[in-house]
Amino acid sequence: MNKRLAKLMDWMKEKEISFAFITAPENVFYLTGFRSDPHERLLGVAIFPEDEPFLVCPKLDASDAKNSGWTFEIVSHSDIENPWEMIETRVKSRVSSVKRLAVEKQHLNVERYEELSGRFPGAVFVAAEEKMQQLRMIKDKEELAFLKKAAEYADFAVKTGAEAIREGKSELEILAEIEFEMKKQGIAEMSFSTMVLTGKNAASPHGTPGSTRVQKGDLVLFDLGVVYEGYCSDITRTVAFGDISDKQREIYETVLKAEQAAVAAVKPGMRAKEIDLTARNIIAEAGYGDFFPHRLGHGLGISVHEYPGITETNELVLQEGMVFTIEPGIYVPDVAGVRIEDDVYVTADGVEILTSFPKQLTFV
Amino acid sequence: MNKRLAKLMDWMKEKEISFAFITAPENVFYLTGFRSDPHERLLGVAIFPEDEPFLVCPKLDASDAKNSGWTFEIVSHSDIENPWEMIETRVKSRVSSVKRLAVEKQHLNVERYEELSGRFPGAVFVAAEEKMQQLRMIKDKEELAFLKKAAEYADFAVKTGAEAIREGKSELEILAEIEFEMKKQGIAEMSFSTMVLTGKNAASPHGTPGSTRVQKGDLVLFDLGVVYEGYCSDITRTVAFGDISDKQREIYETVLKAEQAAVAAVKPGMRAKEIDLTARNIIAEAGYGDFFPHRLGHGLGISVHEYPGITETNELVLQEGMVFTIEPGIYVPDVAGVRIEDDVYVTADGVEILTSFPKQLTFV
Repeated sequence: MNKRLAKLMDWMKEKEISFAFITAPENVFYLTGFRSDPHERLLGVAIFPEDEPFLVCPKLDASDAKNSGWTFEIVSHSDIENPWEMIETRVKSRVSSVKRLAVEKQHLNVERYEELSGRFPGAVFVAAEEKMQQLRMIKDKEELAFLKKAAEYADFAVKTGAEAIREGKSELEILAEIEFEMKKQGIAEMSFSTMVLTGKNAASPHGTPGSTRVQKGDLVLFDLGVVYEGYCSDITRTVAFGDISDKQREIYETVLKAEQAAVAAVKPGMRAKEIDLTARNIIAEAGYGDFFPHRLGHGLGISVHEYPGITETNELVLQEGMVFTIEPGIYVPDVAGVRIEDDVYVTADGVEILTSFPKQLTFV
Repeated sequence: MNKRLAKLMDWMKEKEISFAFITAPENVFYLTGFRSDPHERLLGVAIFPEDEPFLVCPKLDASDAKNSGWTFEIVSHSDIENPWEMIETRVKSRVSSVKRLAVEKQHLNVERYEELSGRFPGAVFVAAEEKMQQLRMIKDKEELAFLKKAAEYADFAVKTGAEAIREGKSELEILAEIEFEMKKQGIAEMSFSTMVLTGKNAASPHGTPGSTRVQKGDLVLFDLGVVYEGYCSDITRTVAFGDISDKQREIYETVLKAEQAAVAAVKPGMRAKEIDLTARNIIAEAGYGDFFPHRLGHGLGISVHEYPGITETNELVLQEGMVFTIEPGIYVPDVAGVRIEDDVYVTADGVEILTSFPKQLTFV
């Protein structure tokens, strides 16, 4: 049994859970090493406190699952087979009755929930999220190495984008050059839809890249990341094209000051909310409090957004091994949108920044 | 009220449903015109049989939602606000009690289900999927125009990929050239991770593009699609690089024969399973039945995989206005992987093929 499964099984014993059915693809990957997007088909790993687990996957992924190194049973189902019957039979051969059943309540859908509650009547459903989040929150050495590599590629992607900026070039054209270069580097997958936003278009915190063209005096915002061996990076940088206004510069410098102060504050024992508030207070004091409408950051790992959220209310105490983003932003409609984001790793006594593209205002 | 919302409200009246909470982003887009990926945040549209709907979205998306043309109330929530309280208040101001509540049981997660069942105790949960699927299954003129345009771009993408093939070039390098060209054409988003698979790597029906390089005698498989105005295309073509073996050619010709026969069989009044079996029987008769492990196709629209599945058991009767894929494949490990896929539209008396890249074996 691998260490991660063993920890989950210990938790199950402690909580008297006789069966856990984990279906979020990122949790399945974490526990089994098999990374797959099953679309609407059923993927899951069934875990028992005292018996061998089994993996459930679509038939067309069965050989990939085997090749991924999973050594326990694989229960594969074609599009016309009912996987729930196969699951029920196998569960009942392993445990005499299911009194407490752990599922991811934020992932399992109501239809599957009704399937399970019908087959294991009377079972109490226990949320598996928190345990999975806690396991995944603390990264091991191998995971940190993957995250560092992913961050390096993200730095390179921003550099590629910054160098591609020319007057009159569209956001999508610049974006295309970034992703082309990344694929040439062997990166098959970005961790989310790459964002290149220029001028007024950057003033939406979740804007969409399109045909807007770079003009002199624009701030150009890059928000992107790559997936490396299943692990995500996430970086944001905002660069200037040509002369910018004093107001744009003031906004940039405010975000930078907030970001640097928040990064500097990170160390084990601090609370997540203290990191958020460090940045938030600087932005508010500069008069931009209403223009920073999102949390400071989020955990990063197999998912690009994972536990914990770095919010102004999260009391979570930071621990060595956590990896998250710090990404304050100010978005003033028709004036400027600026966000600066790093990926950070909590060390034994402070912080290591994984992303390294320069943060001082760059003119391209 | 737009036509789509009006149809859903009629269904609610008929089924005596007092409140529907629709949260799948593609259904929210279909009903509201607001297309958004909320990640883990809550996005939804609340619909009532006799009162005005409201949209729930993260605060940072509120202005985009407004700009998308939604004219009813927008309830936006920041990361530290509880959206469920806001929802409960507004629902209770519109309906005196919620006896029957429609949700997407294949999308709503258990946590949100528990939130709703706690706030509307005693409510019976009704699945909204089937109704949403039925509404979305029949495409209107505007949707068909978007799907045609998406298919045209997919044709162009395959052409770009076929022309990019050179001996020794890797799958990812070819893939990069395709996506670069698509972005230059203004396509911001592919409908799923583009697949370029060569030689033995193509023999997995869900293989992953990587550093495998094209060699003489390879069959190279492209499976890709684009998103155009929120609508997806999905095409597969397999081309030959250099001389191929008789066995490879036999496999190719078998898939082609199966695909063409299935496409030719499509017309209103046929059952989905008859289309699947048309292709499946040809492949089985040629001795490759065990090497075609997936359904023939799937509906296509806002989602790249949507209702209906074209499987050997689906009794659904085809109707004018449906759009789906037809994509038989044969995957013989170490020998060849071939899949050919078109997007088709069911017309009043037959079929219109939306994808048009040549299907006769192309040597590049």
